[in-house]
Amino acid sequence: MIGQQYLMLPGPTPIPERVLQAMNRPMINHRGPEFKDMLLEVTKGVKMVYGTDHNLLIYPSSGTGVLEASIVNFISPGDKVLAISIGVFGDRFASIAQNFGAQVQKLSFKWGQAADPTQLREALARDQEKKIKAVLVTHNETSTGTFNDIKAIKEAMQDHPALLMVDCVSGLGALEFQMDAWGVDVALSGSQKAFMIPPGLGFMAFSDRALKIHRRNTNHRFYWDVTEGLKYLEKGQTAFTPAVSLFYGLQEALSMMLEEGLDHIIKRHRRYRDMVRASIRAMGLDLLAADTEASTAVTAVLAPGRSGANQIRNRMLKRFNIALAGGQLELDDVMFRIGHLGYVRELDLLAVIAALEITMLESGFKLELGAGVNRAQRFISEAED
Amino acid sequence: MIGQQYLMLPGPTPIPERVLQAMNRPMINHRGPEFKDMLLEVTKGVKMVYGTDHNLLIYPSSGTGVLEASIVNFISPGDKVLAISIGVFGDRFASIAQNFGAQVQKLSFKWGQAADPTQLREALARDQEKKIKAVLVTHNETSTGTFNDIKAIKEAMQDHPALLMVDCVSGLGALEFQMDAWGVDVALSGSQKAFMIPPGLGFMAFSDRALKIHRRNTNHRFYWDVTEGLKYLEKGQTAFTPAVSLFYGLQEALSMMLEEGLDHIIKRHRRYRDMVRASIRAMGLDLLAADTEASTAVTAVLAPGRSGANQIRNRMLKRFNIALAGGQLELDDVMFRIGHLGYVRELDLLAVIAALEITMLESGFKLELGAGVNRAQRFISEAED
Repeated sequence: MIGQQYLMLPGPTPIPERVLQAMNRPMINHRGPEFKDMLLEVTKGVKMVYGTDHNLLIYPSSGTGVLEASIVNFISPGDKVLAISIGVFGDRFASIAQNFGAQVQKLSFKWGQAADPTQLREALARDQEKKIKAVLVTHNETSTGTFNDIKAIKEAMQDHPALLMVDCVSGLGALEFQMDAWGVDVALSGSQKAFMIPPGLGFMAFSDRALKIHRRNTNHRFYWDVTEGLKYLEKGQTAFTPAVSLFYGLQEALSMMLEEGLDHIIKRHRRYRDMVRASIRAMGLDLLAADTEASTAVTAVLAPGRSGANQIRNRMLKRFNIALAGGQLELDDVMFRIGHLGYVRELDLLAVIAALEITMLESGFKLELGAGVNRAQRFISEAED
Repeated sequence: MIGQQYLMLPGPTPIPERVLQAMNRPMINHRGPEFKDMLLEVTKGVKMVYGTDHNLLIYPSSGTGVLEASIVNFISPGDKVLAISIGVFGDRFASIAQNFGAQVQKLSFKWGQAADPTQLREALARDQEKKIKAVLVTHNETSTGTFNDIKAIKEAMQDHPALLMVDCVSGLGALEFQMDAWGVDVALSGSQKAFMIPPGLGFMAFSDRALKIHRRNTNHRFYWDVTEGLKYLEKGQTAFTPAVSLFYGLQEALSMMLEEGLDHIIKRHRRYRDMVRASIRAMGLDLLAADTEASTAVTAVLAPGRSGANQIRNRMLKRFNIALAGGQLELDDVMFRIGHLGYVRELDLLAVIAALEITMLESGFKLELGAGVNRAQRFISEAED
């Protein structure tokens, strides 16, 4: 089929031409001065996106890699942790902690809903001896298109001394996040989401309080060790060979993010969400998440009768070259997900809505062709900028 | 300075234009059919380079990442392992095993020398109860430009049941390696060496015997878990988000390697080594490694009087834009290293020799300008193809 694929996934996300060009450069010595300058520049840039003045390390890894990094550096075997889960990635964070010997107490919520901070406050109130060493939570739960209110979660922790460790992999840069202002201790992210570069870089930001706790950590580790990472960062290097081409991409993507401004980026993602949700509703389809908890990175759409979502996805791919994400585990075939993360245009989303209407109509779903598109169009025309 | 840098490091190595172009492509769904085809194709290709019909997993990681992966999957805490070391990377492999709870017995050799298989045979003969679960060894020791004879090492193990685990990160594709024929159980490698692509992919090949041992392994792990990795590979996927752009590069690089033929690639690297060593000697400089043990990937050159190597490197960089590697730890400033790995031309090496002669002369070292270059030229002219 002619033309580039519409990659409407919650990662990997489309790569801007400028970023592709930037990565199209010869290798350099990763122990030399040129790499040092780049490392220091991008470290500063990523910290800006996190809203932190503290520590940041960049790993050659996927997002799951830095989830593991956070556990092996900040949780010791036997430590009690409270793992909030609202979907697949919350469960994954909990599983990693468990695999590395933590005593995991889970606080799970129905898929498609956000965590209730009151329940967290109550759970921590029962921990009178302050045995819980960390609270694990997902910022944007990719599997359900729902986000947790991290600021409210931190407030619910009151004066409990547990570390707050947040999986921001799919949310950072798309949802508001203020690491230092909100008092987050550890926050994980990756390159293939709002950072608009290919997968392969993991980011781990951590507070000085977390670093102090790390010093007494007894977990086995080597590759992820932050003491080594920080030692090398002081010299302007990474502990192990960095993914150089992705650093080129990151440098360029951060320039683009700086030009646009972080506030505008966050606002733009909010608009994507609102536009997609309004258009989907205008078509007569249902959404999984409630408005107040709906992700700005990905929208979960329920299939009519709660089945047949995979056939809809297949038709969208074959007929229109539009890649949508499926539902995971218990939500497989029940829903599909439209990613609207990173380098996406409103008109791309309008085109996806148009194609979805045609697909739904041809699948026997009753709708008025154009209802969703019209809603999207009005949304775009009413926008301020 | 005009023109591209001469990147004469033992990794990252220069990236062919074809590979850069291949990576310059839009992202795809890593859970879709297009990625599946690519994953199966490159897995087959990398296995061909290893000389194995067994298991291969590709991780988003540096080479050190897959060293860790091999330990956490195949060595349980408390297991006794025998770690052969002839330099920095042998020490690193041993340290990782130790960090993850293995009882490490080290068999170290003088830096600049290869391991003596007889000493290994004797060490294993003393292990009458067969308590040693694995022998760890480096194929090509990047820090000293020396390689170990893996075939002889396996033969020295006789019928001892320990796994043979080999760090091939900088050697695979540059030195002969036949995983199955030689009886190697686990072999690790990375993308930024003879594979001619940027850093960020780690390769782990392992035998079915190793897989059986893995099933009983008690180490903590999540990101590196081969059970998960193999489960996803069966579906044509990776367990966690893969570094998609590097896969594009790998696919193209493997095509190039197939076109050239693995035998020719190995022979070409042998010629690089022989040419560089002959020319360096003709200049009157000394080499660290003996001829029979000298790496085909990197040549370690001793500075006159065994000091001032870093100043030579600095001058080469400033004056000629040639990046050489330094000596590590006890060899810092004692020597420098010329990488000749992957996408390198003989005339590049000739140019480096010419520049080195000028640099040495200007540094006060007595030599006849042209002696090394002439040797290199004759070497090229006498070659068969």
